[in-house]
Amino acid sequence: MRAAPDQATPAVTRDLAAFAVGVRSGDLPAEVRREAPRALLNILGCMLGGCDEPAVLATLAAAQRWSGPPQASVIGHAARVDVLHAALVNAVSSAVLVFDDTHWGTVLHPSGPVAAALLAVAEEKPASGADFAVALLVGIEVACRAAVMLAAPPAECSTGFSMTGLVGGIGAAAAAGRLLGLDRDEMEAALGTAAAQGAGFRQTHSSMAGYLVPAQGARAGLMSAMLAQDGFTCSPQSLEGPRGFGHVFASQPNFTAALAGLGTRFELLSNTYKPYPCGVVIHPIIDACLEIVAAASGARIDAVDIEVHPLAIELTSQRHPADEREVQVSLYHWAAAALLRGRAGLAESQMAVIADPAVAALRDRIEAQARADMPRQGAVVRVRYADGSSREAKIEVCRGSLQRPMSDEDLADKFLELADRCLDATAAGNLLDQCLALERQRDVAAFLQPFLNLAAQRHH
Amino acid sequence: MRAAPDQATPAVTRDLAAFAVGVRSGDLPAEVRREAPRALLNILGCMLGGCDEPAVLATLAAAQRWSGPPQASVIGHAARVDVLHAALVNAVSSAVLVFDDTHWGTVLHPSGPVAAALLAVAEEKPASGADFAVALLVGIEVACRAAVMLAAPPAECSTGFSMTGLVGGIGAAAAAGRLLGLDRDEMEAALGTAAAQGAGFRQTHSSMAGYLVPAQGARAGLMSAMLAQDGFTCSPQSLEGPRGFGHVFASQPNFTAALAGLGTRFELLSNTYKPYPCGVVIHPIIDACLEIVAAASGARIDAVDIEVHPLAIELTSQRHPADEREVQVSLYHWAAAALLRGRAGLAESQMAVIADPAVAALRDRIEAQARADMPRQGAVVRVRYADGSSREAKIEVCRGSLQRPMSDEDLADKFLELADRCLDATAAGNLLDQCLALERQRDVAAFLQPFLNLAAQRHH
Repeated sequence: MRAAPDQATPAVTRDLAAFAVGVRSGDLPAEVRREAPRALLNILGCMLGGCDEPAVLATLAAAQRWSGPPQASVIGHAARVDVLHAALVNAVSSAVLVFDDTHWGTVLHPSGPVAAALLAVAEEKPASGADFAVALLVGIEVACRAAVMLAAPPAECSTGFSMTGLVGGIGAAAAAGRLLGLDRDEMEAALGTAAAQGAGFRQTHSSMAGYLVPAQGARAGLMSAMLAQDGFTCSPQSLEGPRGFGHVFASQPNFTAALAGLGTRFELLSNTYKPYPCGVVIHPIIDACLEIVAAASGARIDAVDIEVHPLAIELTSQRHPADEREVQVSLYHWAAAALLRGRAGLAESQMAVIADPAVAALRDRIEAQARADMPRQGAVVRVRYADGSSREAKIEVCRGSLQRPMSDEDLADKFLELADRCLDATAAGNLLDQCLALERQRDVAAFLQPFLNLAAQRHH
Repeated sequence: MRAAPDQATPAVTRDLAAFAVGVRSGDLPAEVRREAPRALLNILGCMLGGCDEPAVLATLAAAQRWSGPPQASVIGHAARVDVLHAALVNAVSSAVLVFDDTHWGTVLHPSGPVAAALLAVAEEKPASGADFAVALLVGIEVACRAAVMLAAPPAECSTGFSMTGLVGGIGAAAAAGRLLGLDRDEMEAALGTAAAQGAGFRQTHSSMAGYLVPAQGARAGLMSAMLAQDGFTCSPQSLEGPRGFGHVFASQPNFTAALAGLGTRFELLSNTYKPYPCGVVIHPIIDACLEIVAAASGARIDAVDIEVHPLAIELTSQRHPADEREVQVSLYHWAAAALLRGRAGLAESQMAVIADPAVAALRDRIEAQARADMPRQGAVVRVRYADGSSREAKIEVCRGSLQRPMSDEDLADKFLELADRCLDATAAGNLLDQCLALERQRDVAAFLQPFLNLAAQRHH
């Protein structure tokens, strides 16, 4: 049995709801507002890049059997479906390349569920870029704070859970509810109803169902916001109550941390963007390998030794990836591909490279060891060559980590690489410019749709 | 971090999937087969009785904004919606009076999500009564076994979780997948995908969102089965893997118990039907009160003392219920209503009785005390009267418990009380007869629809 209700328990549900409905654009520091176009660009790129993957096509085909009125766009496809299914399918697209964003402290990927829900709402209810930007930031901030509640010490949440599956819907509800104009009571109900649908575990990684986990969050969060707007009720204290979200998913949920500095300190500033399309715990290994290969001769590699944070071993020890999904959790693959090819982009996530005999052979000559004293953004890689020489690289702070964030230029390059799968270069460049000007857009759906339609044309 | 994978871990996902696709009607003992019409009658009654409650109307109104093709009936309404929304709305109806069934050891209410998913499938894909009956039993059995995995000692699952929310979708996927004719691999994917959407906590009780928790299970389970049929994949070992369903939701998940005697011993024989529309932990208190009032004079009651299992105190301590939802978790209300009115039926769950000043006053004169040595099906109630006399009733085994199950006649009476809210007496009696003849029906949807349509007519 869980702790009894406590007079002193912070009102997490109420305070997050009040923040979500009440915060004004002018209250947000410039460094926070700057993240709206960056987050949008990053996740829209992931959606455009991911929209043809098998899990997306399977979800879309099914959605079309059940879909209601054509209310919202499916990114990269000509189809339009009802808002809930649009949120679902677009969130699958956002996750399928595992190239999305990561809240560093909680390994939450907030923007997929939040943006997928928000884009659907914006097609039903026209929204200015400024309003959309605040709603996006609100959703990401609320999702991050819900994750902090479950994961900031002394809180402990099983690493088996998908943090994005648990809290993504809460962020989606906050963002969608903000754009829908919910009042505080309605927002409380929306957050609670979404929390009651928080679900998902990491055993599903590397399968299609793994991408459905965050996508269900998008769908459930949007549904919760729309239900709340129509008067659907949820108990107060859904997040902090003795039989609520915090207590069931974490031991000692950290309610204080969830609310600390709400409105003045921004958890979303700890949200990072990935430079490589695989689990973040692999990134320092890739950096080390790229550093070595940039300096090394083309000598044949005999063996590779890796030392890395234990979480990398726990989560990404797939030594023999069979497909594009398993490769996302294979540190061996990314080390081998980076060492042999000198890069670690989308091409390295594809079957041509996965099945390359040289890459496969090198994967088998890599040993990885967990080092508890290693920070998550660090790694050491030692390569021994057939000629007897060796080379070592030590990464203290990997690219894309909090201390070494992706620059605007990095994000633009990443967007263009992803959009290239869907759009011609001119269209991709135009869309990039428009996204960067998000706050000045008069109607988000109106500026996005022509590009989404362009993207869809190649399907027909 | 959770335990490492173990060679000896039972193959829960695979074995449950093999059972779900492979068991034949003829393999089922008569006492098991007998539960199919009983479970259907009980849950169909709940749906017919609950279909006009506010949470149902709110969910239905929202569903109609998003619904796809009119594929399946909304029970008690003229509306037809897509299969997923039909499963969702009908499962809300099944839960909203908290009059459904209860797997005794895990406090799971299996039939709502399972039957709601199955009824929707049967309208898309005609099914004989015999096939429907096996699918229903399969769904209930698989849900119960998933619950046992989380709750049978040494497994421990937070009592804050809604067990029905966690495993209801797994049962729904098994039932729907069975009727859809999935093969074993597809069924594995269906069970895993549904498990990855298992969600919900008890803090939502007494609010509309509380009924959405099992309903999301119905929807998610059906969607998972249909996705799996189309080739959607989910990792093997979703239930038993180190980062899978069992380990994230329970400490020491009991995989052995989940599979013990699968196909020969039936967990569903521990599924019980409620005689009173409130939490099962309140039932022995009601029995004791009814025993007292049957024997007592009409003397004024000064005070009531109750001794009961600690779970009743933990889950149903709402002393001042404000509405029909809060009353479902108010042992004080049901004791007061039973003592003053001599019965504890649907009428006693309504506002007229909740707001009755005499009932409200008596609720305040009741003290309830947890007794750790009391079995869950027992209670002691002592009534002290204004005239100085007193009376005590001690219930060892309450009505509707495992040791004192509802008879076919009890279930028929319950069904007719519930159906009376929707159908005239003749139609209700006919539907009762047809349900009891389930195994001989040639087409389940065809025999049900006329009654569902009759029920809908009063709306128009």
